[in-house]
Amino acid sequence: MITSIDLLGERLQKALGDRATTDPDRMGAYVRDQSLLTAAGRPAALVKAKTVDDVVAVMTVAHELSVPVVTRGAGTGLAGAANALDGCIVLSVAGMDRILEIDPAARTATVEPGVINGDLAEAAAQQGLWYVPDPGSRAISSIGGNLATNAGGICCAKYGVTGDHVAALTAVLADGRVIRTGARTRKNVAGLDLTHLLVGSEGTLAVIVEATMRLRTAPTAATTVVAFFDSAESAIDAVLAVSAVAEPCQMELMDDVTIGAVNRLTRMGLDESAGAMLLIQCDGRSAAAEAADCAAACESAGAREVFHTDDPVEGEEFTAARRMALPALEALGTVLLDDVAVPVPALPSMLGCIREAADRHGVTIGTFGHAADGNLHPTIVFDAAESGAQDRARGAFDDIVAGALALGGTISGEHGIGVLKAPYMADMVGQTERQLMLAVKAAFDPKSILNPGRGI
Amino acid sequence: MITSIDLLGERLQKALGDRATTDPDRMGAYVRDQSLLTAAGRPAALVKAKTVDDVVAVMTVAHELSVPVVTRGAGTGLAGAANALDGCIVLSVAGMDRILEIDPAARTATVEPGVINGDLAEAAAQQGLWYVPDPGSRAISSIGGNLATNAGGICCAKYGVTGDHVAALTAVLADGRVIRTGARTRKNVAGLDLTHLLVGSEGTLAVIVEATMRLRTAPTAATTVVAFFDSAESAIDAVLAVSAVAEPCQMELMDDVTIGAVNRLTRMGLDESAGAMLLIQCDGRSAAAEAADCAAACESAGAREVFHTDDPVEGEEFTAARRMALPALEALGTVLLDDVAVPVPALPSMLGCIREAADRHGVTIGTFGHAADGNLHPTIVFDAAESGAQDRARGAFDDIVAGALALGGTISGEHGIGVLKAPYMADMVGQTERQLMLAVKAAFDPKSILNPGRGI
Ligand SMILES: Cc1cc2nc3c(=O)[nH]c(=O)nc-3n(C[C@H](O)[C@H](O)[C@H](O)COP(=O)(O)OP(=O)(O)OC[C@H]3O[C@@H](n4cnc5c(N)ncnc54)[C@H](O)[C@@H]3O)c2cc1C
Ligand SMILES: Cc1cc2nc3c(=O)[nH]c(=O)nc-3n(C[C@H](O)[C@H](O)[C@H](O)COP(=O)(O)OP(=O)(O)OC[C@H]3O[C@@H](n4cnc5c(N)ncnc54)[C@H](O)[C@@H]3O)c2cc1C
Repeated sequence: MITSIDLLGERLQKALGDRATTDPDRMGAYVRDQSLLTAAGRPAALVKAKTVDDVVAVMTVAHELSVPVVTRGAGTGLAGAANALDGCIVLSVAGMDRILEIDPAARTATVEPGVINGDLAEAAAQQGLWYVPDPGSRAISSIGGNLATNAGGICCAKYGVTGDHVAALTAVLADGRVIRTGARTRKNVAGLDLTHLLVGSEGTLAVIVEATMRLRTAPTAATTVVAFFDSAESAIDAVLAVSAVAEPCQMELMDDVTIGAVNRLTRMGLDESAGAMLLIQCDGRSAAAEAADCAAACESAGAREVFHTDDPVEGEEFTAARRMALPALEALGTVLLDDVAVPVPALPSMLGCIREAADRHGVTIGTFGHAADGNLHPTIVFDAAESGAQDRARGAFDDIVAGALALGGTISGEHGIGVLKAPYMADMVGQTERQLMLAVKAAFDPKSILNPGRGI
Repeated sequence: MITSIDLLGERLQKALGDRATTDPDRMGAYVRDQSLLTAAGRPAALVKAKTVDDVVAVMTVAHELSVPVVTRGAGTGLAGAANALDGCIVLSVAGMDRILEIDPAARTATVEPGVINGDLAEAAAQQGLWYVPDPGSRAISSIGGNLATNAGGICCAKYGVTGDHVAALTAVLADGRVIRTGARTRKNVAGLDLTHLLVGSEGTLAVIVEATMRLRTAPTAATTVVAFFDSAESAIDAVLAVSAVAEPCQMELMDDVTIGAVNRLTRMGLDESAGAMLLIQCDGRSAAAEAADCAAACESAGAREVFHTDDPVEGEEFTAARRMALPALEALGTVLLDDVAVPVPALPSMLGCIREAADRHGVTIGTFGHAADGNLHPTIVFDAAESGAQDRARGAFDDIVAGALALGGTISGEHGIGVLKAPYMADMVGQTERQLMLAVKAAFDPKSILNPGRGI
């Protein structure tokens, strides 16, 4: 084992100089992502790649020596998918962070994988264009990571997730060969869709080294509707009613626990006695008229209070409050964040199931999420110091995932499988389907060195 | 060989009764799709499946006997992808044509694969919902075929292609096992995206036996803008200008040859002296305002005449005229229809390349297409009776495909690869990529019995 690490270090250093290290002291920040309760191993080496050739060199060495490789973007993942494996190479592509081209006429941006989402959005905005996908982590997560997890966000209700905005990819295979997938055109049906196979593959198929993403023209100002309901059930009635008359660019839900937590943190004066709150925004030329219809739909669905504003600053304050949901719940204790999705009409049952799980296991759960997509983030709050609390949290987590499955939903709407959700994959996709996914992985990575045991 | 057909017939008839036949006289209508200049072989058997069990039975027999299977939807394909192979089973799923469920709250429709696109659209409309993808063949092509080719259409400029509207699939593998992919939720990142791998796979990976498609709320009335230009170049300037200020739900181009042909057929009084025509429609609440901006953009781009109407009947007449482009060109001779796409800014060069190809090979080419997507259908018109004409048509076709590739485009925007475009695949996707696609096919279909040699 020690010889093997020495040999690995030697080979990597020969190819990559000081961009490679086997010194554990220099790896500390590269061992885990931001998930809780996920195992992480001890890496044998860390490479901070700067170029495609660096990535090719890493994969060539890893393939020859059969060493596992964990590709790492910004390490903001919430499923442990970028956690190190014992004896692996952590391949950080964070330093490949150049925006290579923004083509305003074709409305595409070609970027290296380490570019931070918000930096691309900013560069696009400077040309009057819009990079749409907006995960909560947009200031800190990378485009490569967003693609490899198929990250969602608040805008996705109307505009789709990361994978809906990709045109073409360049990736390095497990054996160091480089492939280009997709095309720069908006439509392309030549051969199998390798692009969308790489999207969401969590570093198990190939290392994404370049991406051509689609941009839209700059967004218009949004109109905001905030509605408070006695119960989560009537909030979901409103979600269905709104969807029938409008297409908001966001429709976010916060339950009573979350409203309380956010209020304590922000002192915004939200109605803490409400059972749930919806935050709706409409954009486009008819934002105001569409928002008015949303407000009316909320009222008919039984909202106790509906607030409506065209002022972008006020609107942004509410969105900021929604984005504070997770930090606000984190202020209450240690949190275990879940990520399930169900068909929208099943949301009331899902919320009921979450409440039951909280009662059954004696934990607090605050739930918020992307209501228009049926994607909830039940956030289990517990006291890590209290004996047994972690097991009770995990018990509630299990029940929530099982509940989503029972309702015809999915074990992950956007955070991915990684380590955290791996135990539920067999129930989610079935045995034949999983065998098939593993066979597809083997077609890309016959030695199974790319993030083995993850994501599938 | 004869014994083998006898054995095959026996096995199929035992499992499927009179839904299977080996009588060549009963297969005539199932041997070719609607493409021209594509080879078709002589099938050994035809099965008209009515149920998932029928499909499982066919694949079980085919797998055991290693007989190729060509899945057939409505047979409207334009690339020869559903043409029979020598000694194959043609597996027609046209009879699996039930709409199983329309769920208005979840806004999904679950259908068997043989359901005709227009029948689904009609059933959705009866519930106030909208099945969006609208290929020119919507009255005659099947949802299974639309998925297997990732069919585009006129609405795709704004709303995306068939694959953008699928939530979940059920499919039968080459060895008869059944898989379910995706989820009924709007977001799902559990495991590899098998759903979008099946989309566009042209019957090479599995037989789609059920699909859950997403629906939208009913569309609003559209406003129509028709603009005539001196040259195709200034029409494309207008396309870019329009895209910067609006998001039309259609933006279709016809060149001078097409305008003339349509005019002769429809006697609509289109300006035959124009070099190109754009047909633009805007929908949504601000259709009229958006259309006005489109009209202004056309004028600044140098349109010689711009016509603008809110009258849906008049708008529909223009859309109908655009849909007559292919029949109108067919009235001029035998047509070889191409389907290439380039980035929108490269459209003027692409149109130049098409004109050069027409001159070089002495053929007439009428070009129309989905301008907002950069997707053109250059239609080569020739006299099939004239000696050498077919070769000249094929020469022009080759030059057009090569031109699209040189401009960073794709060899097929929507019609697929099938037989017709197979010779260009190596240039399109590169050797490593193609090996990878074939390895993925082998993961699904180790004996390579599903449409072997097609699509990849
Ligand atoms: C505060 C906060 C808010 C968040 N909000 C959201 C949200 O709204 N929506 C959402 O979807 N997620 C959210 N996340 C989760 C996380 O930010 C996303 O999953 C993000 O896409 C991960 O990007 P990353 O660059 O940090 O990837 P990492 O964590 O580094 O890696 C994630 C996975 O991608 C793989 N990977 C990374 N780069 C590449 C590459 N170049 N090639 C191949 N594989 C690669 C890794 O191997 C790993 O499997 C949030 C996280 C935090 C901390
Ligand atoms: C007049 C006309 C206009 C057209 N306009 C358009 C257009 O605007 N846009 C466009 O994209 N195309 C268009 N087409 C082409 C054609 O209609 C589409 O490709 C359509 O999607 C084919 O559907 P189908 O049911 O006829 O499939 P088929 O021709 O029967 O088969 C096509 C391919 O799909 C496979 N397949 C079919 N069903 C299944 C299944 N259940 N499971 C697995 N594989 C299956 C077949 O094996 C074959 O590879 C047009 C064709 C015509 C004749």
